[in-house]
Amino acid sequence: MFKKCAFILGALAGLMLLVSAQSAEAAQKVKKVDPKTCYECHDVVQGLHQSGKHKDVNCISCHGGLDAHLADSSKRPEVFTSWDACGACHKEQHGSFLEVNKHRPARDEKSQLTNRAPNPFWDKLMAPHGFTKEHALTRSHGYMLLDQVIVDRAAGGRFQPKNGWMYVNEKPGKLWDSIVDTHPESSDHKPFMRQTAAAVNPVCFQCKTQDHILDWAYLGDPNVGAPFSRKSNPTAMIQSKKLQHSLNCYTCHDPHAAKPRIVRDALIQALTRPEADTLWHKDPNRTKIEVIDMGMRGYTRKIALLEKYDATLQCGQCHVEYNCNPGTDLKTGGKVTFDDNRTNHFPFKDVLQLYDHYVNEIGFIDFKNAFSGAPLWKAQHPEAETHYNSKHAKAGVSCDGCHTPKIKDKKTGKTFTSHFAVTPREHIKESCLSSGCHPNWTEKDAIYSIDSVKAYTKGKMRKAEFWLSQLIDKIVEGKDKGISEDIIKQAQQQQLKAHILWEYWVAENSDGFHNPEMARESLTKSVDESQLGIKMINDAIAEMKKAQASAK
Amino acid sequence: MFKKCAFILGALAGLMLLVSAQSAEAAQKVKKVDPKTCYECHDVVQGLHQSGKHKDVNCISCHGGLDAHLADSSKRPEVFTSWDACGACHKEQHGSFLEVNKHRPARDEKSQLTNRAPNPFWDKLMAPHGFTKEHALTRSHGYMLLDQVIVDRAAGGRFQPKNGWMYVNEKPGKLWDSIVDTHPESSDHKPFMRQTAAAVNPVCFQCKTQDHILDWAYLGDPNVGAPFSRKSNPTAMIQSKKLQHSLNCYTCHDPHAAKPRIVRDALIQALTRPEADTLWHKDPNRTKIEVIDMGMRGYTRKIALLEKYDATLQCGQCHVEYNCNPGTDLKTGGKVTFDDNRTNHFPFKDVLQLYDHYVNEIGFIDFKNAFSGAPLWKAQHPEAETHYNSKHAKAGVSCDGCHTPKIKDKKTGKTFTSHFAVTPREHIKESCLSSGCHPNWTEKDAIYSIDSVKAYTKGKMRKAEFWLSQLIDKIVEGKDKGISEDIIKQAQQQQLKAHILWEYWVAENSDGFHNPEMARESLTKSVDESQLGIKMINDAIAEMKKAQASAK
Amino acid sequence: MFKKCAFILGALAGLMLLVSAQSAEAAQKVKKVDPKTCYECHDVVQGLHQSGKHKDVNCISCHGGLDAHLADSSKRPEVFTSWDACGACHKEQHGSFLEVNKHRPARDEKSQLTNRAPNPFWDKLMAPHGFTKEHALTRSHGYMLLDQVIVDRAAGGRFQPKNGWMYVNEKPGKLWDSIVDTHPESSDHKPFMRQTAAAVNPVCFQCKTQDHILDWAYLGDPNVGAPFSRKSNPTAMIQSKKLQHSLNCYTCHDPHAAKPRIVRDALIQALTRPEADTLWHKDPNRTKIEVIDMGMRGYTRKIALLEKYDATLQCGQCHVEYNCNPGTDLKTGGKVTFDDNRTNHFPFKDVLQLYDHYVNEIGFIDFKNAFSGAPLWKAQHPEAETHYNSKHAKAGVSCDGCHTPKIKDKKTGKTFTSHFAVTPREHIKESCLSSGCHPNWTEKDAIYSIDSVKAYTKGKMRKAEFWLSQLIDKIVEGKDKGISEDIIKQAQQQQLKAHILWEYWVAENSDGFHNPEMARESLTKSVDESQLGIKMINDAIAEMKKAQASAK
Repeated sequence: MFKKCAFILGALAGLMLLVSAQSAEAAQKVKKVDPKTCYECHDVVQGLHQSGKHKDVNCISCHGGLDAHLADSSKRPEVFTSWDACGACHKEQHGSFLEVNKHRPARDEKSQLTNRAPNPFWDKLMAPHGFTKEHALTRSHGYMLLDQVIVDRAAGGRFQPKNGWMYVNEKPGKLWDSIVDTHPESSDHKPFMRQTAAAVNPVCFQCKTQDHILDWAYLGDPNVGAPFSRKSNPTAMIQSKKLQHSLNCYTCHDPHAAKPRIVRDALIQALTRPEADTLWHKDPNRTKIEVIDMGMRGYTRKIALLEKYDATLQCGQCHVEYNCNPGTDLKTGGKVTFDDNRTNHFPFKDVLQLYDHYVNEIGFIDFKNAFSGAPLWKAQHPEAETHYNSKHAKAGVSCDGCHTPKIKDKKTGKTFTSHFAVTPREHIKESCLSSGCHPNWTEKDAIYSIDSVKAYTKGKMRKAEFWLSQLIDKIVEGKDKGISEDIIKQAQQQQLKAHILWEYWVAENSDGFHNPEMARESLTKSVDESQLGIKMINDAIAEMKKAQASAK
Repeated sequence: MFKKCAFILGALAGLMLLVSAQSAEAAQKVKKVDPKTCYECHDVVQGLHQSGKHKDVNCISCHGGLDAHLADSSKRPEVFTSWDACGACHKEQHGSFLEVNKHRPARDEKSQLTNRAPNPFWDKLMAPHGFTKEHALTRSHGYMLLDQVIVDRAAGGRFQPKNGWMYVNEKPGKLWDSIVDTHPESSDHKPFMRQTAAAVNPVCFQCKTQDHILDWAYLGDPNVGAPFSRKSNPTAMIQSKKLQHSLNCYTCHDPHAAKPRIVRDALIQALTRPEADTLWHKDPNRTKIEVIDMGMRGYTRKIALLEKYDATLQCGQCHVEYNCNPGTDLKTGGKVTFDDNRTNHFPFKDVLQLYDHYVNEIGFIDFKNAFSGAPLWKAQHPEAETHYNSKHAKAGVSCDGCHTPKIKDKKTGKTFTSHFAVTPREHIKESCLSSGCHPNWTEKDAIYSIDSVKAYTKGKMRKAEFWLSQLIDKIVEGKDKGISEDIIKQAQQQQLKAHILWEYWVAENSDGFHNPEMARESLTKSVDESQLGIKMINDAIAEMKKAQASAK
Repeated sequence: MFKKCAFILGALAGLMLLVSAQSAEAAQKVKKVDPKTCYECHDVVQGLHQSGKHKDVNCISCHGGLDAHLADSSKRPEVFTSWDACGACHKEQHGSFLEVNKHRPARDEKSQLTNRAPNPFWDKLMAPHGFTKEHALTRSHGYMLLDQVIVDRAAGGRFQPKNGWMYVNEKPGKLWDSIVDTHPESSDHKPFMRQTAAAVNPVCFQCKTQDHILDWAYLGDPNVGAPFSRKSNPTAMIQSKKLQHSLNCYTCHDPHAAKPRIVRDALIQALTRPEADTLWHKDPNRTKIEVIDMGMRGYTRKIALLEKYDATLQCGQCHVEYNCNPGTDLKTGGKVTFDDNRTNHFPFKDVLQLYDHYVNEIGFIDFKNAFSGAPLWKAQHPEAETHYNSKHAKAGVSCDGCHTPKIKDKKTGKTFTSHFAVTPREHIKESCLSSGCHPNWTEKDAIYSIDSVKAYTKGKMRKAEFWLSQLIDKIVEGKDKGISEDIIKQAQQQQLKAHILWEYWVAENSDGFHNPEMARESLTKSVDESQLGIKMINDAIAEMKKAQASAK
């Protein structure tokens, strides 16, 4: 897909310079280049650039150091990864993207009793997973990378906010403007503070930033010459200061073609795998995609252009269930390390298919419950899959309709797509109450409707947790009483089934609102599975007691 | 009490036509009838009609098809059961009755940790009762029947809102305008969805609607010829579309006499039973009642006129503890079915008398706890009994003073009794702050006072639950360790005692505000009873260990 | 320090008359006395009075019955202990002191699931301590004494509000204007209502009122002739009606010298003990203190003047961890009664030093956990120690900067120190946003910052509770399985360590905001200690099972 130019660099020859803070304004003082000169080598870029609205945007708007690069092609040009590069033209989108919401606190621990994963259930059901160290409710997009780096489960507490707790009120910016490395003398990736975990990994980062997009091979495959891979030391990646910006604009927008796109490798893998088994494959109205290999320097790098904007795919690059961890191979019982590309994997299926997908299809499991010993799974945030086939999806409403609707700029009166991704509560009129949706509702009605679904679903979550907790106790009791390994294993599988059907909804960020029917089905099935597991053990204990009594 | 006219219909001859949606306006186009013609057969009605303010309201205002009926008395006339019939004249009352409050969501599951019956306690203490399937906080009166029919514990999930979750914002109306039957091919009364129960029954319906008032014999006695009885299939009752309106006006207002009345049979039974043992009987200032048999077509049907408005009795038709379930006879150990009129029974006593009432007097119990096996009881919503002898009751304040106070119509300035039954928070000035009550308080003061009582009582609830939960674990442990059946049974009785003293307050809709002193007494006694049960088992285990040690 | 005048009274000769309600105005009608006459006997007072701004304030402003006293020195003069005496001149301070906040309800039980010490944890971890009877969140200073006397854990429920729950809206005043004694016939200090405790004691009172300042010897030492002592019957003390006002002005302000002071004996003891081991001792910038013996009538009574206002010491008279209970001597295993001055003791150390302080240094422990039998400790409200060395402390912000900032009187425009001690949320502009602090923040920013710290810390509390609860279960299991006493004792010590590191933060009134770093360190260490205890038992059980298996 691209010309093998003389100046292709070996991947190890050096990292591309990613310069992000440099303003587009400063760039404009730089002399324009003739795109044709660039096209001579970059034919893929040519195809993209000439196809869309950016065709008259000169290369220097997004790239720096071109003169030097043209003089000596081994000198890598800069890519402006900051939001500011796009923001120079797209002012409203840029401004709205950097807005932040303070409707709930930072670091709002989910296992608080007023939140979505209340103790005593959370720690009992999830220990010893890293998410029992700190599992905070979300903040705005602009804070994503920062919040990820400092959370207690990520890098063992080594990176801390420079200005202490005052960081919560700092505006989103470059990561390293806000943090300090408390142990700069080493790159050890381990806990530095009590009750922390060093559980972040290179695959996680892909959803926080794509600053390193050019330095990461397709699926993060190691040993292919890309500077970063699934096997990279995550602490060293942070220390490199190459990861700075949360959610780059080019994650969803192809900068050359000015067309919607996706770049998250595991989603592209899911959409193109031979099984053709994702929710997208089964959607008769699915958006067509064109996968393009943008690779240079010896390794493959894929993007996929979308025939039209499709928030379910674009947001679905991150707002999905995915696996990003090492774990255990269910067939061999051996470890699955970052050498294995199951550590960067999207099922892109609905919750009811996940047990089968992980257990029977890819044979992978995350961790073991500290109490019952059951093999368990950790959900990510499967908003995209949840939305599929929901009432709102069938009505043609996608993520953007509720979260980033078209709004009017207060000063200019210009209508634009807000890039402030936030709960629709913050703009009920532009989302829920807009014509075509619920124009006859009041704001209060809309909130009442949202809260009602949530109240109902949260009730079901509490029940699923209650019964999972009972099942865990029962397995512990069964082990203590010495019932057969086989029954214990069956009950542990029941726990895994019930767990998947429950934890999915704790990870999913809508308390069931994105798909109340699916939430209900899944959470009540979770209770069924737990109750079946409890019955297995109870029956076995009863039988054992009977046998003991008759033996006397 | 009524003339045996030639046209008395056998009860099986057919159901009276209950036409409710027909507007009073439409009715007025119909030619008036001469009431005397009606009186010829309906002497009881004559007595009522001529005694009150409605004496000049013509029969056609509330009845249809009179011409046909007069021509052929076997053709039953219609009764307009909708609120609209009364609303044609009582506009403000009608309008206010249909108001709804959205201060908390629909289907706000009580077992959420922020609500009144938080897990892990709720499911542990209540399983496997239907109320562990879905137990939502209340909504406004107009939604009562709808909410009852679709709740997960009622009809197994077979009836669902026609428009999905949007139903929460629909205005109160006829039931069948809002629901669909997902299994119209049968009348099976069973679970159709996971984790639902088919636990609603004909007795329950009486508090949701009296649309079928003419088709139900006193106490719902079966085999007396009435179309519906305690033994009717509740699903078939819903499917008949004869139950449509929540809380008909005539539940509290005698339509002929325009006088306050009660119609709920089990309340009339309680007030007239020979034991004369209710709170009402012990109240020296009790409102006098006149019981009238309105029966026709071969079965008895009672109402009771009140000498004056008495909200404690009128609201107390439903806002009471009552039994409406089959269960177990404590003397015989046999089943108590709907043949037995203990399945439609009001104690109408205070919480401290309930253990004695159910266990020693009527010998009836609802269900067994899933974990400890203790016989248990399910409370309904005993607001009336709780209010008796409270500080507010002694000060002469009844339900209406706080919940349906006199207010001024915003347009006309006319003062009328609001029929929007709602927390006084919504109209603090007209209730708490009104002259004669707390006129020197601010709204904030009133709310502070309400919330303080609630905070204190909720604290006591949490303690009662904690100790009940401990007792359950202890009984399970005692069984597992093989202590004597006799001790187990005693401890289970302790659980029942503690349970009644606790669950009453979870069912009661005021968090103790209606009677803080009683709430405190009851909830702390619950803790005492649980602790005594725990001690019983601990002592027995200690004795057993001692015996085992000395046997070695 | 004072002249042995002829009129020194034996302590038993009678109590000084403490007249508090008498207004300063009334007092002013009384003829002034010549202070020199008073100085002849009261030389300590002379030194104080002449040294400060009150030197021209005549004795009659604060004392009554002086004529009689001067005529016959055995007739004790009155001391005006009410806030009104000071308020006659210090109107703004007086007015603001008596303000009350209704941002949360009275008697807001902490063990509710939405509060700081949610069940099931609270009662499990704390039973059978008095604080499991009622542990309510705080109200305003003016209600302190009242709330203490009526709380369910204090005097067994014998003292009740005169006007029932309406007391919550009464303005702060004299205790006996608000309460009744339900058992005036005796002074029994015992439970009178279900689930109450008679757990208040004379040491506790010192933080609620200093009305009895002249009748209490240093440290409350018994048998020294002072009318009240650590051994006094607390019920009788309340019945004496000598305790009437919450937090007298002179607790922090020397009335003679008009200088900042402290009077709380156990703090003076801590600051002057030979070990020199408190946080104050280790603070290089500590405020200098001058201890003065104000004793008369045969017993010592100490105050300490401060060289300057120092809220950490002044508020730290009560907002500290202290012991005020009898308990157990860890060396002898014997009881520690009120004869022992460890029952009136301030560690004045940080949370990480407390296990060592109580266990190894003073060898004292409060109570035993009802489930595990572990020796346990009850925290008081250690705000002062928590604030030491915090970021805010290092920035020179003391309690007053946030809680009683300088504000402008709305009418006069005069700037004064608000004495309405309240969360800074009530006056964000005057506290957080004031110049020198966070002038660029909005109110929303400040609240966001506060709430974020709290959300994070509360998350850690929930984890500490979860693991403590697991440890308790594990100890119970270990005992039941018969593992060695020695291991059980070690695990119980782990429980004590984990308990101190946790409960401190439940007692502390800021959810960690006063020192987030210390809160994190302490609470995560608590988890570590619990997990270590669990491991001890698990290892012992595993070993026992192994031994049993090999024995077969």
